Amino acid sequence: MTSRSPLAPAAFPALPDIAGVTRRIARAHYKEWDRCDLTYIELAPGTTVAGVFTRNVCCSSEVELGREQVKGGSGRALIVNAGNSNAFTGYRGREAVEAIRAQVAEHLGCAPGEIFVSSTGVIGVPLPKDKAREGVAAALTAAPCSWEAAAETIGTTDTFAKGAHASAIVGDRTVEVAGIVKGSGMIAPDMATMLGYIFTDAAVAPALLQAMLTKATAGSFNAITVDSDTSTSDTVLLFATGQAGNVPLASWDDAGADALYAAIEQVALDLAQLVVRDGEGASKFIEVQVSGAVSDESARRVALTIANSPLVKTAIAGEDANWGRVVMAVGKAGEPADRDRLAIRFGDHMVAKDGLPVEGYDEAPVAAHLKGQDIRIGADLGLGDGRATVWTCDLTHGYISINADYRS
Amino acid sequence: MTSRSPLAPAAFPALPDIAGVTRRIARAHYKEWDRCDLTYIELAPGTTVAGVFTRNVCCSSEVELGREQVKGGSGRALIVNAGNSNAFTGYRGREAVEAIRAQVAEHLGCAPGEIFVSSTGVIGVPLPKDKAREGVAAALTAAPCSWEAAAETIGTTDTFAKGAHASAIVGDRTVEVAGIVKGSGMIAPDMATMLGYIFTDAAVAPALLQAMLTKATAGSFNAITVDSDTSTSDTVLLFATGQAGNVPLASWDDAGADALYAAIEQVALDLAQLVVRDGEGASKFIEVQVSGAVSDESARRVALTIANSPLVKTAIAGEDANWGRVVMAVGKAGEPADRDRLAIRFGDHMVAKDGLPVEGYDEAPVAAHLKGQDIRIGADLGLGDGRATVWTCDLTHGYISINADYRS
Repeated sequence: MTSRSPLAPAAFPALPDIAGVTRRIARAHYKEWDRCDLTYIELAPGTTVAGVFTRNVCCSSEVELGREQVKGGSGRALIVNAGNSNAFTGYRGREAVEAIRAQVAEHLGCAPGEIFVSSTGVIGVPLPKDKAREGVAAALTAAPCSWEAAAETIGTTDTFAKGAHASAIVGDRTVEVAGIVKGSGMIAPDMATMLGYIFTDAAVAPALLQAMLTKATAGSFNAITVDSDTSTSDTVLLFATGQAGNVPLASWDDAGADALYAAIEQVALDLAQLVVRDGEGASKFIEVQVSGAVSDESARRVALTIANSPLVKTAIAGEDANWGRVVMAVGKAGEPADRDRLAIRFGDHMVAKDGLPVEGYDEAPVAAHLKGQDIRIGADLGLGDGRATVWTCDLTHGYISINADYRS
Repeated sequence: MTSRSPLAPAAFPALPDIAGVTRRIARAHYKEWDRCDLTYIELAPGTTVAGVFTRNVCCSSEVELGREQVKGGSGRALIVNAGNSNAFTGYRGREAVEAIRAQVAEHLGCAPGEIFVSSTGVIGVPLPKDKAREGVAAALTAAPCSWEAAAETIGTTDTFAKGAHASAIVGDRTVEVAGIVKGSGMIAPDMATMLGYIFTDAAVAPALLQAMLTKATAGSFNAITVDSDTSTSDTVLLFATGQAGNVPLASWDDAGADALYAAIEQVALDLAQLVVRDGEGASKFIEVQVSGAVSDESARRVALTIANSPLVKTAIAGEDANWGRVVMAVGKAGEPADRDRLAIRFGDHMVAKDGLPVEGYDEAPVAAHLKGQDIRIGADLGLGDGRATVWTCDLTHGYISINADYRS
């Protein structure tokens, strides 16, 4: 890994073991590098699964197959390949994924559809079947490893390993939720696809698990952006091993369902924010809050337009209280807005209101806020009750260096 | 002006005089700079006008008023202020524009609605009325100046003056079309709003003139992007003085209407491409051609998604034949596409087809194309007859430097 993002937390958190989840790593040598690049996570029989996937229509075979597999509701293992995304590789790429599924399924004595595969790395090069086969064989018999080792192994251009956890009371049991994630551009399709994996020992029926993941994703993984680009391989999977021994949850009305959801949502939000904190070249973590929109969805679109504006992102990089660029972004979002009701905030400081700068605007406290690492931008549209929060990072020379010089 | 864009043409073109158009410039001292920053273009009585304006809902008073004024169909003068956009300044900004209109209208003995005003520069600071009044007074009596001097005076962060011209036979007359433009981010709302002005000595009824401008804009000013941001002040005005003495054109069916349109379209396209060639930090001019889409509009959205992708733009900056990023951009555009029918071209070289890299792909000629200054990216979706071409530039360290460090 290259030099650690200035926005990284001090250390990888102490994640709890999740009963029914065993992690192993190996070297498949997908690239010329001296590191593990294949992760194998074995899941106890009875594990249920849910997934959300990229909407990019040029998605990889891993995504196509995974989207089908979650309908089965059952997961016995996860394989993550780092260094080759296997995207845009046609039938050859699909064969490589099917070979991995078959190899692991035979080892575990389960159906291939219970083996989930993700790949991240360069586009357009079929995943080499021989390297995959040898890497998988090594991983199947490797010693179990830590969460941190697994989080490192799924990473590519990531500058730090990312994990998060929470717990919940479900019936008379305490259940644990732990997750790992990789990604450092929102995606860079070469090497920074976003992949997230969340595990719980709770027992949850697949339909409810999917509903929980879909709901948790909206305000977390779908509320972050680094560069507005959308990977061909983005994937978040949620596995529930059922080993905690709780009465299986099948409905939102079941006791403990809300508590488990809250824990899953917290882990998803923590992981999503860690991806932003490792945004390519990031020097500032930016929270964009939009209120007063005609609907939550409208607020979200305005917030994402602000968060994706290169001019807003470069202004923050320059610690420049350039609120005019926020006005511009609100106005170009294509959502209902009224210039003369608009209010803009940096941190806790109102800078513009009712369509013009606030009387006696003092830039000093705003400038002080912008010197920090955690920046908050607020926009109130003054039209309704719609609100949304999204997270992004600034746009710096580091982003250009990473992405203009990546392959060469 | 700062150092000239590497993509700039060798020199400002020799634009023909347009009968009925007189240019004058003056110093309004809108900023602490030693240059002319107020342009006054006087138009002969009988001049008709058409306009297109930003869709940004947080638009300036200049845009609001201009949009109303073009409905009148008559234009007697244009004032362009450089250094202050007067956007997001509420009633005070509007008063400043109305004062300028009144001052010029009194001088010419015409209606204030025949005086068009544009402003470009920092957002949120009302245009100072006293400076404007003195600047306008000086401009009204200044000596006529060249096209190049006017093109320089409307500029802000532009690194070179931009002009274009064409001519057409209308009836038994040769009519001239000349235009100037400023803008160097697609816009940067501080200082790089796109403003374009096209003049012809042809006689054209306002409704037809508007139809011609709207049509010409679609494939020119609306087909370029530098950073995907949309200014609060973008404006293109087309004035027809009628001094050429042709039988006035009122319908597309009139003899010469098509020829005049072709000349207007050519000037609009040349001016639009010059804006891209002065894109902030640009080192490469990029043409994106999309074909095989389900409709032209769908092709245009896919082309703009490719052109706006930071990952595509940084790859080109790095002279990196990273066609996977083009695949990614096609897939995220939200338009009908089929991964397994997609073909990607760099220059004249096919790199991927039918969902995977071409057999025996040789990167050498592609790499050679990418070393040039004019880059062509092609994507064929293989679905229908829809096609579109858009133009953009690469995303470089220069863009970050200009926009992160602009105000400070």
